[in-house]
Amino acid sequence: MQNLVVQKYGGTSVGTTDKIKNVANRIKGYHDSGSHVVVVVSAMGHTTDELVDLAEKINPNASRREMDMLLSTGEQVSISLLAMALEAIGVPAQSFTGSQVKIITDGNFSNAKIEMIDRTRIDEALALGKVVIVAGFQGIDRNENITTLGRGGSDTSAVALAATLGAKECEIYTDVDGVYSADPNKVAGAKKHAMITYDEMLELASLGAGVLHSRSVEFAKNYNVVIHVRSSFNQNPGTLVVSEDKLVENVRVSGVTVKSEEARVTLPDVPDKPGMAAELFGNLSAADIIVDVIVQSSPANGKNTISFTISRKSLKDATPILEKFAKDHGTGKVDIDDKIAIVSAVGVGMKSHVGVAATMFKALAANNINIEMISTSEIKISCVITEADAKKALQEIHKAFEI
Amino acid sequence: MQNLVVQKYGGTSVGTTDKIKNVANRIKGYHDSGSHVVVVVSAMGHTTDELVDLAEKINPNASRREMDMLLSTGEQVSISLLAMALEAIGVPAQSFTGSQVKIITDGNFSNAKIEMIDRTRIDEALALGKVVIVAGFQGIDRNENITTLGRGGSDTSAVALAATLGAKECEIYTDVDGVYSADPNKVAGAKKHAMITYDEMLELASLGAGVLHSRSVEFAKNYNVVIHVRSSFNQNPGTLVVSEDKLVENVRVSGVTVKSEEARVTLPDVPDKPGMAAELFGNLSAADIIVDVIVQSSPANGKNTISFTISRKSLKDATPILEKFAKDHGTGKVDIDDKIAIVSAVGVGMKSHVGVAATMFKALAANNINIEMISTSEIKISCVITEADAKKALQEIHKAFEI
Repeated sequence: MQNLVVQKYGGTSVGTTDKIKNVANRIKGYHDSGSHVVVVVSAMGHTTDELVDLAEKINPNASRREMDMLLSTGEQVSISLLAMALEAIGVPAQSFTGSQVKIITDGNFSNAKIEMIDRTRIDEALALGKVVIVAGFQGIDRNENITTLGRGGSDTSAVALAATLGAKECEIYTDVDGVYSADPNKVAGAKKHAMITYDEMLELASLGAGVLHSRSVEFAKNYNVVIHVRSSFNQNPGTLVVSEDKLVENVRVSGVTVKSEEARVTLPDVPDKPGMAAELFGNLSAADIIVDVIVQSSPANGKNTISFTISRKSLKDATPILEKFAKDHGTGKVDIDDKIAIVSAVGVGMKSHVGVAATMFKALAANNINIEMISTSEIKISCVITEADAKKALQEIHKAFEI
Repeated sequence: MQNLVVQKYGGTSVGTTDKIKNVANRIKGYHDSGSHVVVVVSAMGHTTDELVDLAEKINPNASRREMDMLLSTGEQVSISLLAMALEAIGVPAQSFTGSQVKIITDGNFSNAKIEMIDRTRIDEALALGKVVIVAGFQGIDRNENITTLGRGGSDTSAVALAATLGAKECEIYTDVDGVYSADPNKVAGAKKHAMITYDEMLELASLGAGVLHSRSVEFAKNYNVVIHVRSSFNQNPGTLVVSEDKLVENVRVSGVTVKSEEARVTLPDVPDKPGMAAELFGNLSAADIIVDVIVQSSPANGKNTISFTISRKSLKDATPILEKFAKDHGTGKVDIDDKIAIVSAVGVGMKSHVGVAATMFKALAANNINIEMISTSEIKISCVITEADAKKALQEIHKAFEI
């Protein structure tokens, strides 16, 4: 379809009735200029949090199926209100739930993956000149149970729709006007990127940069959809998330991030035999505990030291699993530090630049910040440090790379 | 299916998280005693009104399709919360939207009629020992658009489910403990009925007794489902709504009601020729104006006087239609009284008792209350009076029939 625009508006962009009207006016501009517009919307403002609170009051251990049934109403409210706002200014519009456009997912409630989307009803509505508004964050499994895609899942809904409909670009509207080299609220010299690669964005997203849902970036990468991250409150161009071959120049480091609310766990004297790591991380995974950085030192005396980080709030669930593992295998005492943070530098340029790690370690050392753990990938270096040093570390690393 | 119970809980019964827990406990009692339970729930408390307010702020003339999309979220919230409340006390439960149990309706948004229900998923869940919770008030049309059944439509959802599932009785839980001979807040001696017929209930419902959705009673009558109207706040038996042959004794008058917020319209000197009433009421109907009492006097001098009542708030829409009709057919001046009320006495016993109308007129006359219009059916007498006299009229008629 010619002139197809897929846009996603996040919760802050539709947080009030006035903001919904503002979004409607923005959409009208595209519609009036002859574009076919498909819009994905999140729930208004803090709706999802409020629904979670309501559920907590009734059952703190509610089944995920019923949570998804509950939470999906938030987006259903915002799609209908946005359709009404468009009707009010003379733009024909039609809203659709995830069920109605058959956003088919697996049956993993609360964190479902999109498997396919049926474009039939969308095409019908677009052919009638209507703006199509689709509820983000939600789908249905093959038994028509309502599923949700996890926090931030509306981004993935939008990119999946763009891929399905063959749109070249997917605009993600948010309350920041792009992807920055660091959080502008924490680092004075933080710079907005005009372009960034999918891989960099993936590392940044999983590191808590908080702009895009990771799965949306994977989707965009797999289907070669350009994501345009921009603000719904102004007309500035934002940041394009693209494949590496489109990037004109690879800067060494494109972003520095910090992830707080983390805890570091160390298991000393783990027997050096096959299956230890598989058992440990398998048990944690079975309890839905997400492990981030994992470091295992080389064996000495037939023993290993395994260190890893988890979110601080999953410590309570993790502790009995760790204690049992320690007892079963006669390891040393479980050591936990729940006052840590992870600072990371990300950039596809790292691959071709030497000394990136050294620059980062030097910046930390010069400021007397001790490194507890180090983990590196092709385009990322992460250091676990004391949480109290996190902000300082962020600023100094940003400065050191002269971004 | 043996031991099948269908229950409907209204908005006040699930108005807070504590009330939802209360409802869950009540359901647990039925479940533990071996019953299969199917529950229909309305939206919590004033949710629907709040959603309507939200829509008004965005578009006072929103399309009905989008209104239904919006309003149906209210029930989706309450079904999931009730399922969670049941899970919390160890009762397996599963919630379903109208779409998921395929409550198929016509495409008349905001006032849709149920055409069929697919019992497959309900039977599957019941067979697994689960309490089935179905969203009231909503369905889908044959294109999977979400429809709603109109105010009070959850009653109809419940009765339609009871009919589909072959349940003998449908319990309707509300904040009053049965059907009264008059509004107990207005008439001191109002008496609760143990039983009442479908026809009486239909007349009472359409007269604003406000207990049951009319269409639910029609449904119950057609499928011979006994409706049990009772309170969710105590264990008292309520009122059974049954077919006439089940009633032991036909009392003369089973209920007296008053309907306020009405207006009386009189068109004098309407030509006495075929098609006049059809045109007039056809035009009003096309504008969605509901006409209640209609009286046409016998023709004199080739002219008729047609009087009827409509709700006061539809006067604005009705006026241009009336003026045009008057002009087109050279009738007398349109006369409107927007300060009227309709008092009615209802009872299947009227058919076999003489003097019911006379008793009613006498009660009004003795209190110096003027009757503007009279309309009678087999089981109902309605009088249009000045609104200021409404409360007094209600009390005096109730007293006169010694209910």
